Amino acid sequence: MKNKTVFSHLSSTSAARMVNISQKEITNRMARAEAWVNVGEDIVKKLQLEGGLSKGNVIETARIAGIMAAKRTSELIPMCHPLMLNVVEIDAELVNDSVRIESRVYSDGKTGVEMEAMTAAAISALTVYDMVKSAGKGIQIGPVRLIEKVGGKSGHWKCEEVFDATS
Amino acid sequence: MKNKTVFSHLSSTSAARMVNISQKEITNRMARAEAWVNVGEDIVKKLQLEGGLSKGNVIETARIAGIMAAKRTSELIPMCHPLMLNVVEIDAELVNDSVRIESRVYSDGKTGVEMEAMTAAAISALTVYDMVKSAGKGIQIGPVRLIEKVGGKSGHWKCEEVFDATS
Amino acid sequence: MKNKTVFSHLSSTSAARMVNISQKEITNRMARAEAWVNVGEDIVKKLQLEGGLSKGNVIETARIAGIMAAKRTSELIPMCHPLMLNVVEIDAELVNDSVRIESRVYSDGKTGVEMEAMTAAAISALTVYDMVKSAGKGIQIGPVRLIEKVGGKSGHWKCEEVFDATS
Amino acid sequence: MKNKTVFSHLSSTSAARMVNISQKEITNRMARAEAWVNVGEDIVKKLQLEGGLSKGNVIETARIAGIMAAKRTSELIPMCHPLMLNVVEIDAELVNDSVRIESRVYSDGKTGVEMEAMTAAAISALTVYDMVKSAGKGIQIGPVRLIEKVGGKSGHWKCEEVFDATS
Amino acid sequence: MKNKTVFSHLSSTSAARMVNISQKEITNRMARAEAWVNVGEDIVKKLQLEGGLSKGNVIETARIAGIMAAKRTSELIPMCHPLMLNVVEIDAELVNDSVRIESRVYSDGKTGVEMEAMTAAAISALTVYDMVKSAGKGIQIGPVRLIEKVGGKSGHWKCEEVFDATS
Amino acid sequence: MKNKTVFSHLSSTSAARMVNISQKEITNRMARAEAWVNVGEDIVKKLQLEGGLSKGNVIETARIAGIMAAKRTSELIPMCHPLMLNVVEIDAELVNDSVRIESRVYSDGKTGVEMEAMTAAAISALTVYDMVKSAGKGIQIGPVRLIEKVGGKSGHWKCEEVFDATS
Repeated sequence: MKNKTVFSHLSSTSAARMVNISQKEITNRMARAEAWVNVGEDIVKKLQLEGGLSKGNVIETARIAGIMAAKRTSELIPMCHPLMLNVVEIDAELVNDSVRIESRVYSDGKTGVEMEAMTAAAISALTVYDMVKSAGKGIQIGPVRLIEKVGGKSGHWKCEEVFDATS
Repeated sequence: MKNKTVFSHLSSTSAARMVNISQKEITNRMARAEAWVNVGEDIVKKLQLEGGLSKGNVIETARIAGIMAAKRTSELIPMCHPLMLNVVEIDAELVNDSVRIESRVYSDGKTGVEMEAMTAAAISALTVYDMVKSAGKGIQIGPVRLIEKVGGKSGHWKCEEVFDATS
Repeated sequence: MKNKTVFSHLSSTSAARMVNISQKEITNRMARAEAWVNVGEDIVKKLQLEGGLSKGNVIETARIAGIMAAKRTSELIPMCHPLMLNVVEIDAELVNDSVRIESRVYSDGKTGVEMEAMTAAAISALTVYDMVKSAGKGIQIGPVRLIEKVGGKSGHWKCEEVFDATS
Repeated sequence: MKNKTVFSHLSSTSAARMVNISQKEITNRMARAEAWVNVGEDIVKKLQLEGGLSKGNVIETARIAGIMAAKRTSELIPMCHPLMLNVVEIDAELVNDSVRIESRVYSDGKTGVEMEAMTAAAISALTVYDMVKSAGKGIQIGPVRLIEKVGGKSGHWKCEEVFDATS
Repeated sequence: MKNKTVFSHLSSTSAARMVNISQKEITNRMARAEAWVNVGEDIVKKLQLEGGLSKGNVIETARIAGIMAAKRTSELIPMCHPLMLNVVEIDAELVNDSVRIESRVYSDGKTGVEMEAMTAAAISALTVYDMVKSAGKGIQIGPVRLIEKVGGKSGHWKCEEVFDATS
Repeated sequence: MKNKTVFSHLSSTSAARMVNISQKEITNRMARAEAWVNVGEDIVKKLQLEGGLSKGNVIETARIAGIMAAKRTSELIPMCHPLMLNVVEIDAELVNDSVRIESRVYSDGKTGVEMEAMTAAAISALTVYDMVKSAGKGIQIGPVRLIEKVGGKSGHWKCEEVFDATS
């Protein structure tokens, strides 16, 4: 007997597939993700002095890159649907030795926008990495994770656990 | 007196900029990055049963997505140069409760391919996330980090510290 | 007297144009296309042994490429409208000396998805070609053709004639 | 004992991979492909009257689409390398009941341009299809095939067999 | 006290942002823009003789480029929303020593299509520039400007002033 | 007798074509372009107060958009070659009632980078337009023009005439 696959992105023969959203309802969707970039104490200080949060250019470049990437999620993630987005919002702040990026994506549609939020956060984080990598090795990105999701069949979900950037 | 910026991607007035590589030498370049996706014990078991490493479709989709993303790095990361790539290689394996993705990018060029390797690993990881997210919440991506770099003025660099996926 | 053009994609002065779909109804749309790749007996055998339909990697790569291409049809075909797609499905099977690819595209929209189905099938076929071309010259793609279409003013259309891959 | 794979695009574990061109020589490369679109007698007549080869707009749109697609081959075909191209040339002519498209792509590089020529021809053919499909059902694309290849280790190859559009 | 920003694309902390269109109504939208390319008397004569408005290839290439660019506006202009478009229309005519390009974009959506019309006109103009630049230096593009806008909260707006290409 | 076309981008039958650069020498190339955005006195004042040149976010977003667009010129302008770029530099300043954007593009290659510089300047200008359009109607872009060109057969060319933004 053939069991139903547990992954919605795999067919019963394990081939990768898009989820068919023909029968889904259009609802208001929101997803919120975060990405941390541990740049280390030195770079945080340099970001505070120049190109930092007040002056904005490392961070502003990263925010713009994230917004633009969210709009192209379906080109990057093979099984994602092309989607209309109502807005992509990205914030960034310095927390201890890290840059914390938060993305929020809103849409009215038949499918969720988790991947758009995750992609926006990840590409913003990669852009921070690119902009500061000349100042030091050993920079790490992570965690990149979903922290809230609204809309669709599964309703409202929120991550309870706060990431502790000091551990 | 105006100090030279410490970030090669910011001008002396803190504007974002590309690095001018006109005067750089063409050398053989390589960069190796890794991305971890902590999917949890349940999903690891399901990946071993179906769509897993032997059958390959979650992993294979992620590998292909990463290869394709590496080629488009300069479209995603604002200050990256368009580059010719000799090859993009991506491996994936199950380690404890995680999928570990390793990317290797080779190029002959005037600038390094770190961002191509990092982008390939990150998009592969996002694709794993997309493919298995229906089977469970709380999946996290990270660390995404450079582990080796060859070529260019800075020569050969290798990350000494191994990531401990069990911690 | 100036006759109305017979091609909806040409204006009365024969300039290429998009069709204006402002007044069209949103209906459920489906299109199904097929593409054949005559790879020859030898390559079919090799595909059965490795990278074949059971193991999936030539075929899986081709399927993923087709799904991704369908989403970008309006970037490739100049007069196509950008469209939201509910799903892109691609199957592949070995038939005699050929790989037969079938694509199905579903959408709710003001215009049909024939070009998305045709583009998906064609890019899947080109990817099969790319993946196996090292094993032999003389591989041919064709026919690539629409086999079914649902929705819109013209209703349901189905191709009666089955392509005979042995001829 | 594990045999070497026969497909250069599959690794020894049958995973899809790019070919590593690091060690290849830069040589002058050329590839020539053709794509046939059997549009039927009626549409050929209409193309001769308006939007045809003399007036140029169906054909011109198809030619431009093919040239643009050739430049994006590595975005569409997963295992293709990004390449610099010296020129993409596309011709089209009416032959019996068909439009015959010929593409020629020239490059100086480490890898061949077959896929660029094939993609250019295929996207040109899909564009012809799109531009004339309102005038009739049952249009077929094919064959799409390589007809000449110059450069690289395998030297000069030419397809001996001429496609007979009347059969 | 913090004043509300006067630019809808800047947040209260002056960070670039997309406008949140979640609460906006879907209305019929239209925008019309024009772009002038002052190519000079000589090139205008050459365009009339060959590749000109009757034969169409400089102009036709520019029109196609503009239509294709309109569909990709949200990839190019960072804070633009991805949009479905009902049609993109582009006309071109020779006026005195210039090529005048007019674009019209129609959409049903929550936000206007000014940027789509402006981008279409600008890329068409750049394409004219590219196609004729071998025949003379000193070609200038401008003005590129919105000339009409329909739909949304601000209703119907029309530019009163006609651009005088002879001044 | 058939005359040679005067436009290098048209064939002898007036079909659009890419220029074949197979035989051209690789030289150091530079192109410098400018684009003016006449935003009016009010918006200039607002830009000086917030989001202006010192704080940077309208301008910074426009600069980043221009840099990213330069890298994609060959996707937008049909007959342009894909090119490697050494650097794209964009400056912006307020001059009278306008924002003046200057782009500089450097490459080592077989063909010039005028179109990359022109496209960078034009997309930066369109982004300024997008970012400030909520604050006033009647904003105009222009001129967009080449002001310097180095490299290739035609050597060094410089535009003598300075644009007078007060006229």
